[in-house]
Amino acid sequence: MPTKPIPDIVVGRLPVYLRALSFLAAEGVQTTSSQDLGKRLGISAAQIRKDLSHFGEFGKQGTGYNVNFLREQIRRILKVDREWSIALIGIGDLGRALAHYGGFVDRGFRIVALFDVDPAKIGQRIGELEIMGMDKLAEVVRGRSIQVAMIAVPAAQAHQVAEQCFSVGIKSILNYAPITLQAPEGALVQHTDPVTHLQRMTYYL
Amino acid sequence: MPTKPIPDIVVGRLPVYLRALSFLAAEGVQTTSSQDLGKRLGISAAQIRKDLSHFGEFGKQGTGYNVNFLREQIRRILKVDREWSIALIGIGDLGRALAHYGGFVDRGFRIVALFDVDPAKIGQRIGELEIMGMDKLAEVVRGRSIQVAMIAVPAAQAHQVAEQCFSVGIKSILNYAPITLQAPEGALVQHTDPVTHLQRMTYYL
Repeated sequence: MPTKPIPDIVVGRLPVYLRALSFLAAEGVQTTSSQDLGKRLGISAAQIRKDLSHFGEFGKQGTGYNVNFLREQIRRILKVDREWSIALIGIGDLGRALAHYGGFVDRGFRIVALFDVDPAKIGQRIGELEIMGMDKLAEVVRGRSIQVAMIAVPAAQAHQVAEQCFSVGIKSILNYAPITLQAPEGALVQHTDPVTHLQRMTYYL
Repeated sequence: MPTKPIPDIVVGRLPVYLRALSFLAAEGVQTTSSQDLGKRLGISAAQIRKDLSHFGEFGKQGTGYNVNFLREQIRRILKVDREWSIALIGIGDLGRALAHYGGFVDRGFRIVALFDVDPAKIGQRIGELEIMGMDKLAEVVRGRSIQVAMIAVPAAQAHQVAEQCFSVGIKSILNYAPITLQAPEGALVQHTDPVTHLQRMTYYL
């Protein structure tokens, strides 16, 4: 294992590699190369080799990478060789879409609790889960050792909701509200925003 | 303007800078620095200076950046100083959430057409827009010179939908389906996937 911190930008590419490796595995492909991965992902082979070298030796000169082995190694590095419980807060259209999203399970995550402030929504069910009021957040997060939350509330409420999350022990927030949230020491926030993706493309148009 | 291509990773950070500058502008802040921006974004000041230097000289040694000026320059570089029309395809929970999302307008984008294959949805309205069948795609995309599409269909349909889009002249796709799509020469696909964001955080837990 490495002793000096890995650049976050490198960490950020590992899920992309993992995703590509999972597709390859699903297609029954057993061996791949930095060139092949790079071509699929639009990343240079040299970059992929360099990124992976931070974590160890995963391939052999001339024979490339064993897809399943590399996939397992990256799952282990990213700690998604286990299942993380997620609290989803804000059950509007987007929250509902996330609650129905089929891509979490098998990739290390499971939404285990739904929260909203709207009394009309509290008590409703989505699949096996019942939407709870925010007064239940502390009890549920602590009781189920939840460390990850997704926030899909309006921008005006996102700050307060994030603070509530951090105060009850959430360590990572994926924020869908169109506002930048600050994480306290030892915690993390990732922002996701369709517009930043779109803007990256219009540059090339 | 630069003569050699800018690394895509640099282009990808410009929307993040733009977002931060827009928040600063909304807060009434008139001047900022690489240090200040870097602190807000978790990116080093040196990186920000280096990224911006690809596009020109935007700040003065010792006085920093004029927020509105730098914001306008990045809007121009990313070509979001105009409004791009978007076709949104797949009006499930996620499509509906995107259709309602308030963060597009003023950031260079407007959803102008909604498409779905489900006969029960075709003809329904979301706000001012009526959901259309895919048989209308070519006519609408060409008639309104739409170059950007967002795909929020199930994974099994995403490939076919993307090919339809490219065949009628769409140049950029933001793909929400949990599957990697290939873009033909001269076109672009960006993938967005909550799991890759989550996986980047669990590394640190």
